[in-house]
Amino acid sequence: MPNEDEMVVTPWEVRGRVDYEKLIREFGTQPITEELLEQLKKHLGELHLQLRRRLFFSHRDLDLILQLYEQGKKFTLYTGRGPSGHVHVGHLVPWIFTKYLQDNFDTRLYFQMTDDEKFVIEENLELRETKEFAYENALDLIALGFKPENTFIIFDVQDIGLLYDIALEVSKRVTFSTARAVFGFQDSTNIGWIFWPAIQAVPCFIHSKLTGENVPSLIPAAIDQDPYWRVTRDVAQKLGYFKPAQIHCRFVPGLGKGGKMSASEPETCIFTTDTPHDIKTKIWNAFTGGRPTVKEQRKLGGEPDICTVYQYFLYLFEDNDDKLAERQGDCRTGRIVCGDCKAVLTERVTEFLLDHQRKRERARDTVEDFFITR
Amino acid sequence: MPNEDEMVVTPWEVRGRVDYEKLIREFGTQPITEELLEQLKKHLGELHLQLRRRLFFSHRDLDLILQLYEQGKKFTLYTGRGPSGHVHVGHLVPWIFTKYLQDNFDTRLYFQMTDDEKFVIEENLELRETKEFAYENALDLIALGFKPENTFIIFDVQDIGLLYDIALEVSKRVTFSTARAVFGFQDSTNIGWIFWPAIQAVPCFIHSKLTGENVPSLIPAAIDQDPYWRVTRDVAQKLGYFKPAQIHCRFVPGLGKGGKMSASEPETCIFTTDTPHDIKTKIWNAFTGGRPTVKEQRKLGGEPDICTVYQYFLYLFEDNDDKLAERQGDCRTGRIVCGDCKAVLTERVTEFLLDHQRKRERARDTVEDFFITR
Repeated sequence: MPNEDEMVVTPWEVRGRVDYEKLIREFGTQPITEELLEQLKKHLGELHLQLRRRLFFSHRDLDLILQLYEQGKKFTLYTGRGPSGHVHVGHLVPWIFTKYLQDNFDTRLYFQMTDDEKFVIEENLELRETKEFAYENALDLIALGFKPENTFIIFDVQDIGLLYDIALEVSKRVTFSTARAVFGFQDSTNIGWIFWPAIQAVPCFIHSKLTGENVPSLIPAAIDQDPYWRVTRDVAQKLGYFKPAQIHCRFVPGLGKGGKMSASEPETCIFTTDTPHDIKTKIWNAFTGGRPTVKEQRKLGGEPDICTVYQYFLYLFEDNDDKLAERQGDCRTGRIVCGDCKAVLTERVTEFLLDHQRKRERARDTVEDFFITR
Repeated sequence: MPNEDEMVVTPWEVRGRVDYEKLIREFGTQPITEELLEQLKKHLGELHLQLRRRLFFSHRDLDLILQLYEQGKKFTLYTGRGPSGHVHVGHLVPWIFTKYLQDNFDTRLYFQMTDDEKFVIEENLELRETKEFAYENALDLIALGFKPENTFIIFDVQDIGLLYDIALEVSKRVTFSTARAVFGFQDSTNIGWIFWPAIQAVPCFIHSKLTGENVPSLIPAAIDQDPYWRVTRDVAQKLGYFKPAQIHCRFVPGLGKGGKMSASEPETCIFTTDTPHDIKTKIWNAFTGGRPTVKEQRKLGGEPDICTVYQYFLYLFEDNDDKLAERQGDCRTGRIVCGDCKAVLTERVTEFLLDHQRKRERARDTVEDFFITR
């Protein structure tokens, strides 16, 4: 019988209890040290809560990127989205961090909407659907306030003409045996999926194609995407490009027990298109670190470490470290109970999303200003 | 030790003594029967020498294509070229046949220049080179007199924006295990090559995308390309398209002993860019069915069946059946010797190619009229 707690982390599946120290060792990445945080502060000023609280916890070559930057060599940012449905709050977390990097380093972001990938991977999705979701998801990105002059959204299917030559160069240098070892491809995997890692590599290098200037790329993304970049890093040098650097975040938990926030369990994640009623319902049904009865909880206190509501404050909805510590302490001592936290979180999420939804609708008028083909 | 006569026929390799009857059985295709030739005559009038002399000898669903045509349902033609170098006379043979079909059936041709395929397959070719050869090879196609209004050349890399969505639909329906079984892919095969059969399938269906009209496709090509169409035929039905039909030709032999005319042995094939001096040298060094001495040959006669010079008359340079029979008879009886045939062939090939080269240069001015994206 499979152990349901066994950790499985691939670009397409995350399950079990995730041990991040072990992931760093297994993936061969570097932890973000105090020293590196100090170096970041020189450029970023106050550290973003996602750095302070170690949501971003691991990297490859971030030190090198900073060293080059300090020598006057710019870098580009690259992240993306697999548009298999609407965006949820978990998706926004690294995007908000990416915007913070863009603002502070004043650098270009290439954002890839992988409508091709989601189509070849998801048995029940039509290409028409993934293209529609890509467009809808782009509205969420834009609503966060990315600067159009520095932001280039790539829609894979629409923009394949820009991507294909570099993808061919990459694909020629990746054998099936490498792809199978890294991505776990099987005999039943379709040939579109097998080729796709070559497309995922392209935004690391596209700045060079568009501008003629060879600069390194820094990829903020969840650590499950790391295998792609291992392969891309090998190929990059053969093609005369910089190896792409990464800064890895943890998985933002859903409102259910354990695991990564997953759109396949819609009751456990808050979509950006949810109504105030949806938000309230989902938060009130969230898995917390509470006790069976309020009486017991007043006496024993709650467990914020396993509480999904607390994670929402931690990663997005409580920027003030003192107030966060106060909430944590009050929970542990039973001074506040789950209903208190849920009420505050519902208010904050609702306020955030009502504003986001207004900006998201306005983005329909400006989305084309962000197209890489503009 | 490998048997050098052992027959190997794949889309990327043809060697050994080719047994065409066996290929029909192994590939599961149909022979072109007398009955089918009679049916073709109704539409084509006089049969082209390549049909009369069974250069085109096998098919899939050609009977169905004719049946639909007689019911008023048009079809499109599709063939292509892997641009790994300059075109030689062997390449022109099926193209000339394709033009004959286009003229007589008054139908569209989609012609695919697979600059992407040749790049991922040939270790030593750069993408820049295969793209240049694709353009140069297109001039040869146009020089043959194809009608621009009915001819659409697809340059894979340049036109990937038109091809990618259909390729994704195909690729999602082809597993690695199918691709490995059909194409012989191995662990060392790169992932670009593995995906590529999905791109090769697209021109079968692109007419439907461009016009909204679902019509079948007929592919005139050498039989080594058949494996592609077996896979495409399986997928076609799942996508709601007609299965592509094929009409298969034999391999046009080079001027060396045995095998298919191969650009990798440049001394054994006549390129369309060759000078009269090149042509003369190559034909005079050709492998023939002659005897060690002229004296012996006058006495014993020659063997046209194994003679590469005779094959040139057979497939391209002697349209008159009586004159061909006369040449064959005169050879067998020793009335003519190899020098006689070589002199006549040199004259005909030179005359043909000098004219072709003039038309080829003029095609530089009109090539864009043939672009599918025009």
